[in-house]
Amino acid sequence: MSIKFFLDEKDIPRQWYNLAADLPTPLQPPLGPNGKPVTPDMLAPVFPMNLIEQEVCQDRWVDIPEEILDILYRWRPSPLYRAKALEEALGTPARIYYKNEGVSPPGSHKPNTAVPQAWYNKKFGIKRLTTETGAGQWGSALSFACALLGLECKVFMVRISFDQKPFRRLMMETWGGNCIPSPSPETNAGRAILEKMPDTPGSLGIAISEAIEAAVTDPTGQTRYSLGSVLNHVMLHQTIIGLEAKKQLKKAGENLPDVVIGCAGGGSNFAGLAFPFVADKIAGANITIIPVEPQSCPTLTRAPFSYDHGDTAKMTPLLPMYSLGHAFVPPPIHAGGLRYHGMAPLVSQAVNEGLLTPLALGQIECYEAAMLWARTEGFISAPETSHAIAATIREAKKAKEEGKEKVILMNWSGHGLMDLTGYHAFLEGKLHDYPLPDAELAKSMSVMNGLPKPSTAKTGKW
Amino acid sequence: MSIKFFLDEKDIPRQWYNLAADLPTPLQPPLGPNGKPVTPDMLAPVFPMNLIEQEVCQDRWVDIPEEILDILYRWRPSPLYRAKALEEALGTPARIYYKNEGVSPPGSHKPNTAVPQAWYNKKFGIKRLTTETGAGQWGSALSFACALLGLECKVFMVRISFDQKPFRRLMMETWGGNCIPSPSPETNAGRAILEKMPDTPGSLGIAISEAIEAAVTDPTGQTRYSLGSVLNHVMLHQTIIGLEAKKQLKKAGENLPDVVIGCAGGGSNFAGLAFPFVADKIAGANITIIPVEPQSCPTLTRAPFSYDHGDTAKMTPLLPMYSLGHAFVPPPIHAGGLRYHGMAPLVSQAVNEGLLTPLALGQIECYEAAMLWARTEGFISAPETSHAIAATIREAKKAKEEGKEKVILMNWSGHGLMDLTGYHAFLEGKLHDYPLPDAELAKSMSVMNGLPKPSTAKTGKW
Repeated sequence: MSIKFFLDEKDIPRQWYNLAADLPTPLQPPLGPNGKPVTPDMLAPVFPMNLIEQEVCQDRWVDIPEEILDILYRWRPSPLYRAKALEEALGTPARIYYKNEGVSPPGSHKPNTAVPQAWYNKKFGIKRLTTETGAGQWGSALSFACALLGLECKVFMVRISFDQKPFRRLMMETWGGNCIPSPSPETNAGRAILEKMPDTPGSLGIAISEAIEAAVTDPTGQTRYSLGSVLNHVMLHQTIIGLEAKKQLKKAGENLPDVVIGCAGGGSNFAGLAFPFVADKIAGANITIIPVEPQSCPTLTRAPFSYDHGDTAKMTPLLPMYSLGHAFVPPPIHAGGLRYHGMAPLVSQAVNEGLLTPLALGQIECYEAAMLWARTEGFISAPETSHAIAATIREAKKAKEEGKEKVILMNWSGHGLMDLTGYHAFLEGKLHDYPLPDAELAKSMSVMNGLPKPSTAKTGKW
Repeated sequence: MSIKFFLDEKDIPRQWYNLAADLPTPLQPPLGPNGKPVTPDMLAPVFPMNLIEQEVCQDRWVDIPEEILDILYRWRPSPLYRAKALEEALGTPARIYYKNEGVSPPGSHKPNTAVPQAWYNKKFGIKRLTTETGAGQWGSALSFACALLGLECKVFMVRISFDQKPFRRLMMETWGGNCIPSPSPETNAGRAILEKMPDTPGSLGIAISEAIEAAVTDPTGQTRYSLGSVLNHVMLHQTIIGLEAKKQLKKAGENLPDVVIGCAGGGSNFAGLAFPFVADKIAGANITIIPVEPQSCPTLTRAPFSYDHGDTAKMTPLLPMYSLGHAFVPPPIHAGGLRYHGMAPLVSQAVNEGLLTPLALGQIECYEAAMLWARTEGFISAPETSHAIAATIREAKKAKEEGKEKVILMNWSGHGLMDLTGYHAFLEGKLHDYPLPDAELAKSMSVMNGLPKPSTAKTGKW
């Protein structure tokens, strides 16, 4: 019996799917400092116009340019696996399938959007991209994409990660990326922080400020900023994962899955797998779709649907999203990619509509799941991915209790070979969970009190 | 145009190819301390009898048990790639293909033999395997295999690597392997060394001695030793690479390649790709087959075909092989997996026959090649693999000079994500080559003076 389902290159999806076209309640616009919707022109110094057009696009299907496919073919279509060994270990009647996004050169789903973003920038005449990175997954994916397309890439990496994760930085440098610790003396934002706090470990908020400043202040006008999650066009690019999975499930003899699962930080790998199935759910299919977040950063499970800034420094427009408050500092869990206070507006809107069933898990349960995965399926998972695995195991056990032959589809978003310290802590018994007290959350969310509120109207029941 | 060629699981090779059956001059036997051929019984305390039978097997084809295939399917058949971006960067008329062995969970070709070895041991009733590891590729592959098959695994890791490469150790521990620094206080061999040199960095020779001792002294008799290269059964298990490549080249519209290239330390990844094509060469095909070794460890290019010990401590039988002398200590190049004084007897015999065209390269040229690879093909290569890439680039340039549409096939034996320090040294301009003076080599090879000599008869001209 097969455990791995390929697609030939000729069968790769040639269009991305845009959930914005099908959402029962339309997506609400980002708001500028004046409280009014942001216009494309206002974003022009930050992003190239062709990507801004994609950001506001309402078309259901968007063609993938051939030149982008030519690069994606290096790891796409990614294989769909049947997790037969895990099923047997659990004794579940469920059939568990997962997309292996760890086969990309940087080892995660991130290049699915890094390549299109670099390509559209290049087409628009841009020579240089700036971005920020925390743990380094996104910075290495963008460095990779820029290397293949001949763009310069500057990555502001949160200083503490820069110091603690030298191998991530070396990945970026191997691909020609210029990775510098943030705060840096290269920007006004960085200099101001360094003057006040010369020994600061840095933060994603500061790094975003520096990356945007470095882009918009380039006097040649040939630099733009790039973001690895949250935005609509990022979700769009990632839907190739779910579109491939649909074709591969058919090859495996399955129809639609009963359960779809992905971990969710900013939302992109989750959206990538799930959105094509959200379309089926809107059309009437009975599918449980689960974004999994950390118990210590419970955006979708304990925060309100609100308008909030995407960054700590309030440089971004207000986005309609579930948010713990833009000043929230998540506890130091190992899944750095899930330590984000907000959530992609498209994912948020789908949650508000009741289309998704969010779940929050503690990291100890997630590492237990990742250990079982490593010793059955064989792959070592990224700490972020372990959240999806833990939720999958919960669902597989539920299917066993119910005696149901459910089909579960999961996104294995990346390997953990660059992030083994969490496994070490787990094996040594030194891993902690960080449940958040209500009072702490309330305080964090209070920064949104004066901000505008999006409509929370719901149109459907799923 | 496709750049990636899959095989469905149903098309996986179901037999391994044994070059011993086709070598024009038969392989000469290993010799024991008495100078006489080693008998299977003498090896029984070290290896299980079913693997010893494979070691001396003369059958051309050996069936791959279904249960082994069930595990190999996790990464096999591995994809065959066309290196179109590299071809374009070089402006070569050559068509370059490579097998991507980096898709396995441990990230290299090593589990192709780790899994069968663990499986045969288990079938023989063995509960525990011991092995040594230098940089950690083999130790992690065997830990992985033992995890999936429910065996215990003990890895003696050269102390300096144990200290310098904590992430490799964490990989092994995640798969349940027990990784300890060698020399250790757990064996007589280790204790003797520690008493004399408490601060020794260790060596592969010492680690082999400890691993063998730990296996043969287990009073339960349920422990055996496992080796990741050099031996005939290891070469056999790796031939699945080349057998898949043959089928995939057909899918790509090619006949036999003109050039076949792999890096060679102990010889296993090279043999895995090349041996099925050596068969074609013996049958009359015109193929140039190139094992690539480091200039600093020039076993095939500057050493004699001799009998020598496989380890520094002279615990192993005498093997008929090209050897720099069992006491040779290679310079500290980054390609740890190529720092071996000897070479697999099957590869050695094929070289002696004139079937292969060995090449030695300096590591700076190899890192230059790996950098070009990362920025064209996109994948970050293991330092060992970079030797195959550099030779491929040489051949592609030669094809350009000659104006010939050659087909080059290379083994991309593993990714370099756990070995980025070499890239760092290269980027900083701190990388050195280590050409070996003749006098130094002569001195190193003098340890073989009193040892028996294998026949160097040649039967063919290729």
